[in-house]
Amino acid sequence: MYYVGVDIGGMSLKAGLVDERGVISASKAVPTRAKAPSEEIVSDLAGLVASLLESEGLTVKDIGGIGIGSPGSVNDAAGTVRYSCNINFRMTPIVAMLKEALGADRVAISNDANCAALGETLFGAGRGAKNSVTVTLGTGIGTGIVADGRLVTGNGSAGAEGGHMCIAYGGELCGCGKRGCYEAYASVSALIRQTERAMEAHPESLMHEIAKEEGVNGKTAFIAMKRGDKVAKEVVDTYIGYVGAGMVNFANIFWPEVFIVGGAISREGDTLILPLREYIAANIHSAAYNPPIEVVAATLGGDAGIVGAAALVMERPPRAKLH
Amino acid sequence: MYYVGVDIGGMSLKAGLVDERGVISASKAVPTRAKAPSEEIVSDLAGLVASLLESEGLTVKDIGGIGIGSPGSVNDAAGTVRYSCNINFRMTPIVAMLKEALGADRVAISNDANCAALGETLFGAGRGAKNSVTVTLGTGIGTGIVADGRLVTGNGSAGAEGGHMCIAYGGELCGCGKRGCYEAYASVSALIRQTERAMEAHPESLMHEIAKEEGVNGKTAFIAMKRGDKVAKEVVDTYIGYVGAGMVNFANIFWPEVFIVGGAISREGDTLILPLREYIAANIHSAAYNPPIEVVAATLGGDAGIVGAAALVMERPPRAKLH
Repeated sequence: MYYVGVDIGGMSLKAGLVDERGVISASKAVPTRAKAPSEEIVSDLAGLVASLLESEGLTVKDIGGIGIGSPGSVNDAAGTVRYSCNINFRMTPIVAMLKEALGADRVAISNDANCAALGETLFGAGRGAKNSVTVTLGTGIGTGIVADGRLVTGNGSAGAEGGHMCIAYGGELCGCGKRGCYEAYASVSALIRQTERAMEAHPESLMHEIAKEEGVNGKTAFIAMKRGDKVAKEVVDTYIGYVGAGMVNFANIFWPEVFIVGGAISREGDTLILPLREYIAANIHSAAYNPPIEVVAATLGGDAGIVGAAALVMERPPRAKLH
Repeated sequence: MYYVGVDIGGMSLKAGLVDERGVISASKAVPTRAKAPSEEIVSDLAGLVASLLESEGLTVKDIGGIGIGSPGSVNDAAGTVRYSCNINFRMTPIVAMLKEALGADRVAISNDANCAALGETLFGAGRGAKNSVTVTLGTGIGTGIVADGRLVTGNGSAGAEGGHMCIAYGGELCGCGKRGCYEAYASVSALIRQTERAMEAHPESLMHEIAKEEGVNGKTAFIAMKRGDKVAKEVVDTYIGYVGAGMVNFANIFWPEVFIVGGAISREGDTLILPLREYIAANIHSAAYNPPIEVVAATLGGDAGIVGAAALVMERPPRAKLH
């Protein structure tokens, strides 16, 4: 059986034909008209799905359903996007609109970070795990919780916003207006801020030279550290402590089998994952008595969102089929 | 149908006969021989349950099952207590031992804070809620998460230890050896510490007079605040901010319908609950777009543990029967 997974992004709308093993056999994309009326954006979405199906010789009756990942505040059960910062959705009933436009029976939606978490857990780095927490380190921090092959999102799917849990009471100001949020310490934007502060305090640091080429970014401190810069190593160590602190919170509450770390920074691989694993093992509650928690880097990259969106409409948690 | 709920405490073992509405119709207790070999403690438990059933004219075949709440690290699925600080349990397979001693088929166990959360959610302050988070403010902080009438405890039931989530990175030292734990800021012990510090800095505060009678305790600042003491009001306001910060973290991750606040401090009633409600509404993520979250004080008191333990062995989530 095939499913369609749709990833709504600020730049492009992407749709993929996905099978129950999580393999994308065909995909298409169109630019997102982010500021257009929501009806037009959804009409673009419907056109994209129809065109993908047509080019594969399929109709909407041939597939198991259509799953959508959207940025912003999504009400999964109601099938609406309450609000999105970057795209013109305001209480937009996307599921109902898409059902009507395509004559489809089975359409589901969730937040894009949740879809990526579901995709990675079922078909990527977390394959086989009973439960997982995915932390995506980007401009902000996205978090997704999966238990028994299904997303855990709380009442009205308003939860799973771990980026805004407080890890430093009264601390750094976050983009959300609150202080001390995980995102204000462990996102790529936070790492860049921490890098810049260290550079200001240390004109002798190698980071200045590295930043000359492409400016300060999430890689600056990692590159300098690998070349032996001590200030950079301190920036990275401190940053990994922040990333770990939020994950330890998730552990003490949920105790997943596996943490999946996604986003650009996860491409650092073992440089990030090994010390993070150590930090988590040393800081989770009663580690001596409780099951160990694995920490891995995401493996699906940009595909996680499409594959996870498709998994929203798969009838049984794929894990039951796969293992 | 009747069920037996057992609450293992450091001072006494309590057992109650509970019906499916959560009403305790009979109960018994014996002292806990906390330092005795675990076999003897479990034998006391079995004797207590047998004696309760006998005095009600019942046998173990007449009841729906036996549920147990135990302090410490409990593996619900395995039916063992891995470790308890105060009672001599070390990888003790209580469920198997009790099944054998009583000839019972249906025995289940969970952490005592989890049982209290389940009891309050199904039959107490959270009655009717689809999902809830219970925060018990005591010497430490116990937390319990209920979704669809069942406890959420993570892999190996090692989670639901929200008292040890970090809310203040690098902050106050916690009894667990880590820094910045919720428990180190929002437990009664933490409130007492905060009260003592404020008293030291303010010899003029009314709190000194109040503490003369029974020493500094969790009520000192609340009493002084109600009599107009400004320093005490600051202590209470700050403390409520800490309590709220941990609850906001739970909200941003789980978004329950209701928070239930238990423990001695919850007896302050509206003095605690009203400002806590305000703090939470003002600090949860995207409050304008998401469903509101209710905050209530626990209502079952010491019975919550027995009733919740009994609910562990009720066949369907009682909510389905009740609403």
